[in-house]
Amino acid sequence: MLKQKRIRDFGIVIGALPTGEKNAITDVEGVRVGHATLKKGDVHTGVTAVIPHDGNTFREKLIAAVHVINGFGKSAGLIQVDELGTLETPILLTNTFGVGTSINRLIQYMLDRNADIGDQTGTVNPVVFECNDSYLNDIRGMHVSGKEIDSAIENASSDFPEGAVGAGTGMSCYKLKGGIGSASRLIKIDEKNYTIGILVLTNMGKLEDLTVAGRKAGAEIAAKQAEGEPSSDKGSLIMIIATDIPMTSRQLKRMAKRAEVGVARTGNDIATGSGEIVLAFSTAQRIMHYEKRGIIDIQMLDEECMDIIFPAVAECSEEAVLNSMITADRTVGRSGHVRESLADYL
Amino acid sequence: MLKQKRIRDFGIVIGALPTGEKNAITDVEGVRVGHATLKKGDVHTGVTAVIPHDGNTFREKLIAAVHVINGFGKSAGLIQVDELGTLETPILLTNTFGVGTSINRLIQYMLDRNADIGDQTGTVNPVVFECNDSYLNDIRGMHVSGKEIDSAIENASSDFPEGAVGAGTGMSCYKLKGGIGSASRLIKIDEKNYTIGILVLTNMGKLEDLTVAGRKAGAEIAAKQAEGEPSSDKGSLIMIIATDIPMTSRQLKRMAKRAEVGVARTGNDIATGSGEIVLAFSTAQRIMHYEKRGIIDIQMLDEECMDIIFPAVAECSEEAVLNSMITADRTVGRSGHVRESLADYL
Amino acid sequence: MLKQKRIRDFGIVIGALPTGEKNAITDVEGVRVGHATLKKGDVHTGVTAVIPHDGNTFREKLIAAVHVINGFGKSAGLIQVDELGTLETPILLTNTFGVGTSINRLIQYMLDRNADIGDQTGTVNPVVFECNDSYLNDIRGMHVSGKEIDSAIENASSDFPEGAVGAGTGMSCYKLKGGIGSASRLIKIDEKNYTIGILVLTNMGKLEDLTVAGRKAGAEIAAKQAEGEPSSDKGSLIMIIATDIPMTSRQLKRMAKRAEVGVARTGNDIATGSGEIVLAFSTAQRIMHYEKRGIIDIQMLDEECMDIIFPAVAECSEEAVLNSMITADRTVGRSGHVRESLADYL
Amino acid sequence: MLKQKRIRDFGIVIGALPTGEKNAITDVEGVRVGHATLKKGDVHTGVTAVIPHDGNTFREKLIAAVHVINGFGKSAGLIQVDELGTLETPILLTNTFGVGTSINRLIQYMLDRNADIGDQTGTVNPVVFECNDSYLNDIRGMHVSGKEIDSAIENASSDFPEGAVGAGTGMSCYKLKGGIGSASRLIKIDEKNYTIGILVLTNMGKLEDLTVAGRKAGAEIAAKQAEGEPSSDKGSLIMIIATDIPMTSRQLKRMAKRAEVGVARTGNDIATGSGEIVLAFSTAQRIMHYEKRGIIDIQMLDEECMDIIFPAVAECSEEAVLNSMITADRTVGRSGHVRESLADYL
Repeated sequence: MLKQKRIRDFGIVIGALPTGEKNAITDVEGVRVGHATLKKGDVHTGVTAVIPHDGNTFREKLIAAVHVINGFGKSAGLIQVDELGTLETPILLTNTFGVGTSINRLIQYMLDRNADIGDQTGTVNPVVFECNDSYLNDIRGMHVSGKEIDSAIENASSDFPEGAVGAGTGMSCYKLKGGIGSASRLIKIDEKNYTIGILVLTNMGKLEDLTVAGRKAGAEIAAKQAEGEPSSDKGSLIMIIATDIPMTSRQLKRMAKRAEVGVARTGNDIATGSGEIVLAFSTAQRIMHYEKRGIIDIQMLDEECMDIIFPAVAECSEEAVLNSMITADRTVGRSGHVRESLADYL
Repeated sequence: MLKQKRIRDFGIVIGALPTGEKNAITDVEGVRVGHATLKKGDVHTGVTAVIPHDGNTFREKLIAAVHVINGFGKSAGLIQVDELGTLETPILLTNTFGVGTSINRLIQYMLDRNADIGDQTGTVNPVVFECNDSYLNDIRGMHVSGKEIDSAIENASSDFPEGAVGAGTGMSCYKLKGGIGSASRLIKIDEKNYTIGILVLTNMGKLEDLTVAGRKAGAEIAAKQAEGEPSSDKGSLIMIIATDIPMTSRQLKRMAKRAEVGVARTGNDIATGSGEIVLAFSTAQRIMHYEKRGIIDIQMLDEECMDIIFPAVAECSEEAVLNSMITADRTVGRSGHVRESLADYL
Repeated sequence: MLKQKRIRDFGIVIGALPTGEKNAITDVEGVRVGHATLKKGDVHTGVTAVIPHDGNTFREKLIAAVHVINGFGKSAGLIQVDELGTLETPILLTNTFGVGTSINRLIQYMLDRNADIGDQTGTVNPVVFECNDSYLNDIRGMHVSGKEIDSAIENASSDFPEGAVGAGTGMSCYKLKGGIGSASRLIKIDEKNYTIGILVLTNMGKLEDLTVAGRKAGAEIAAKQAEGEPSSDKGSLIMIIATDIPMTSRQLKRMAKRAEVGVARTGNDIATGSGEIVLAFSTAQRIMHYEKRGIIDIQMLDEECMDIIFPAVAECSEEAVLNSMITADRTVGRSGHVRESLADYL
Repeated sequence: MLKQKRIRDFGIVIGALPTGEKNAITDVEGVRVGHATLKKGDVHTGVTAVIPHDGNTFREKLIAAVHVINGFGKSAGLIQVDELGTLETPILLTNTFGVGTSINRLIQYMLDRNADIGDQTGTVNPVVFECNDSYLNDIRGMHVSGKEIDSAIENASSDFPEGAVGAGTGMSCYKLKGGIGSASRLIKIDEKNYTIGILVLTNMGKLEDLTVAGRKAGAEIAAKQAEGEPSSDKGSLIMIIATDIPMTSRQLKRMAKRAEVGVARTGNDIATGSGEIVLAFSTAQRIMHYEKRGIIDIQMLDEECMDIIFPAVAECSEEAVLNSMITADRTVGRSGHVRESLADYL
């Protein structure tokens, strides 16, 4: 069980579907999350790693898909996921200017575990997501190093903190403190239980738009706050969805598109400068890098059953955005910039 | 001023931006809307026409874009709008099985006004949208004829009814009566007033999901209703956005994507079988079919100003969905199927 | 064996892979092709039907994908194929202004065979492709009727003529006579034989660009011809690919993209007004409309094996374009417009 | 004038359109190209920089578009170009595992010249392309450093070498030596001269497929060669198109799509593992980062005039691929792997 006080602990329940045990992406078996946090002076940033399964992800890839809601973003590895429909590395999340270093370190991590890459076989496609934390963090200093990346991967666990931690350390959401949030839902298909889990990195929105379970909480909070300095709205939102339901990449993409629905209900209008991207993967089956057969057996979901899944995704994304805020402590960052915590207002 | 009792008349105001005079798509100068309604026995269907400008749309095209939210749909003309970024005919909306007849009649309408089409010059791209009204309408009878199409185009006016009229006659929304809805917003750019207007044809959603300005109205209504027969959720949602802001087709597409945001706030999760499509066009400038110059001057919006537009689109789509319901009368249709009116519950 | 004199009969062999028995799309088991031709006075047009399998295509759908090379086109049904990855009707090809009538008739054809459509279940997605045959045909007369559509479907057979027949009756290719062409290739996967077949409807290109197996044949022909009237280059190219290899829709889309490669080698530069579209489907497995299971078993191709397929597709599309020309007789059409036959020049 | 012996110097002329003075991308005014080459022992790699204009590219962006032919690739910055339609940095090309370092250095380069990035304004979108040069290069060693990147940018000039230089140092094309190639064409619009130029980084293809101006040169060369070891076909192809024609990003994307046409004529079938990507930009107008007006004036091409441009693009890409090979010297690389030069066979 995740230990911080989350949105449900404030009596706010999103949707009607049952949650997984942890109400987190790690309810999907084999998925782990790790953080490394840099928090000192003007530096408020970090790295979050999502490990999709415990094996060798290059040798045993997962079916995956990407949906770009708004492409103002510098995330890496997306076009190959889109073309081949597979994920072959852990997923890293960090600040915008940490992408290059994350790519390099993730390549090195994969090379260390696969002597064949770039020698007997092709290259590897590192998947790295980013948001711009420059309001609270000295992003120009490019402080993320290989050390943080290694640490985030090594620390990955099925229990993980949310809020102002890892890649979420310096992020803002609705002009309050944002960061890492998660949620999950259980659904039944053919009498069998399946799990859908999400992890979000939130860094978007204007305070007056914040809506909590239908209530215009942002406008109420704005009324209480002193007039703040106008801050640039160069946010972003990354959403990683994991599931153990067998799906094709086309189906995962359709599922990924529904994540926006839940976010819209928290008040977000998808600003022009907000890079909003969803990656979805299924742990149900593995695509072998060295496949001996030409024709392989897989499973997919009957298309009509997508309607069981879509509400679960919408519930997860709405709740995860709120969890990312409610668990994030008030932060004083770069140049004395401050982001208050939603927890102090609810 | 549109004359029916609309959602604002129930004290429910969506968003903070000012509306146009009619709070309708026809607040965008030159845009007109017309309906033809078929309502007799098992037949509950019709046609709605959106006239984008008063001139010859083939000779003077408008910059346009399409965004497919969910492609379970049979609308016509979309790939050419996407490729060329222009709209060259009036827009027709009708039921799913009325698309073929609408294409034929719209071609004839264009041929009658342009002796050059298919002779001295190329062909014409008819744009036709559809939703499946089979719950209330005998869609298998294919009752829409050229007569209704002509009539919808001829009746087009800046004043037009909403609800169970034209293409909206047989549509259902959140298992209540849906149909045609509209809304508009005014914004300022460079100290000048511009208008964004929307027309929706609503036919999607489950009752328990309906949310009215943050309130879970659908669940409340469901509690009051007798247990209904389960009905197939094969809906759809068409949204037409007009504006007088000069934009490129890339920008119009970005704008079109934000329409989903407002709809999500009414509770919709975008069901697998719900074809949800947005078309956006700008009346600000005309692209000549017979252009003499090789290089032409146009205007576009500074990209940062998209953030002025996006909230207006989200407000418009949310309000238009609610208007399509509140103005739609209770309807007894095919095989005695009934859709209640939201107006009877608010 | 197809009976006309084809490009191989002129000693011109495209590529190195073995062809199927007929060297046609109907080498893929179960696929049939039928034509209806209208040829009288100014009317030179028709309909071609591709029947994907012998069963009920609505109840037993095939996995499919669409690739739009250039979207200047009015083809119908594409966005749903793209969204759901399935084909559920026969495929019709006709002239641009025959799309509406083809949609209507194809819907009726499906309604006649499926009492549930639009009543107990959802609607049906008719797939119709088109090219503009207005140089040789009185397209404004809209001469295609339900009779031709019925006839094309009923006549469908594994043996079928190419050239100036069916939808190809009035088409032009490289300013010579074009129309219907086909080709196929055999490949081996896991020691098992598979077939890839293509059917093209050609209506694009400038004479001077025509290249036959690397030879600039078009320039040679142009030198022999009297100065012709300049004709508008409002062509199009439709390509239907069938295969019995099990593939996902993502893989079929990747395969479809390679069709352009072969066409480029015949000299085509993809003109702005040339709607070039590819649809690919696999007969290897059927997706049930009334599926009882939530999770279904399918097969897909190991991604590395795509490299066995891609050259076959490129060879097929190049040869089919040439077959569409070499089999097409000289035609005198509307207003005395003439298209010579490539066969008279090779 | 570029000084190496190019394909025209072998009497092979592609197409009929006139070339620019240099027959290179740098015929487009303001565009410069620079290389840094690493060539020692097992290291055969480098960096190529394309400078789009001489000003501050962040403050004065260019309209741009991306077309992904085949997304097996790790190039960076593409989704933002697609969303916003602008290019705001120099373009770097390097090997697959040099992308992270190139991103980092390009960010630093931009930060050094723009104190506002990541502080008073948003972030910057570095555009980096890659191919996998692991056959000739120790790609696992990740040898590209900031030094090479700086050097490539600093060396940028309107005169530049092609072939086995810069990012092309270790690349293979049709199993011969590939690398950097360029070409240009002049066209007239409204009686005014315009230029289209291309730069390619070639690393794709099988020897037997190589076609030189319609001649199956690859098969002839293969017959002369000793049986080689089978090598993995994990190539790629990057194409950068520059023009001074005013176009919107939609139009640039349409232009970019035609680059594939010329490449197909050199024999390429777009292998599954070949990341083939095109970026196109126009130098005709600048989009200001700090724009004071909300509505801005731009120019675009009349859509019909695209047909003047498309053949020029196809000619350029075909010739540039051949130039990349003919100018590339025989190379002995990693582990004694050898790539012969096409120049030794023609």
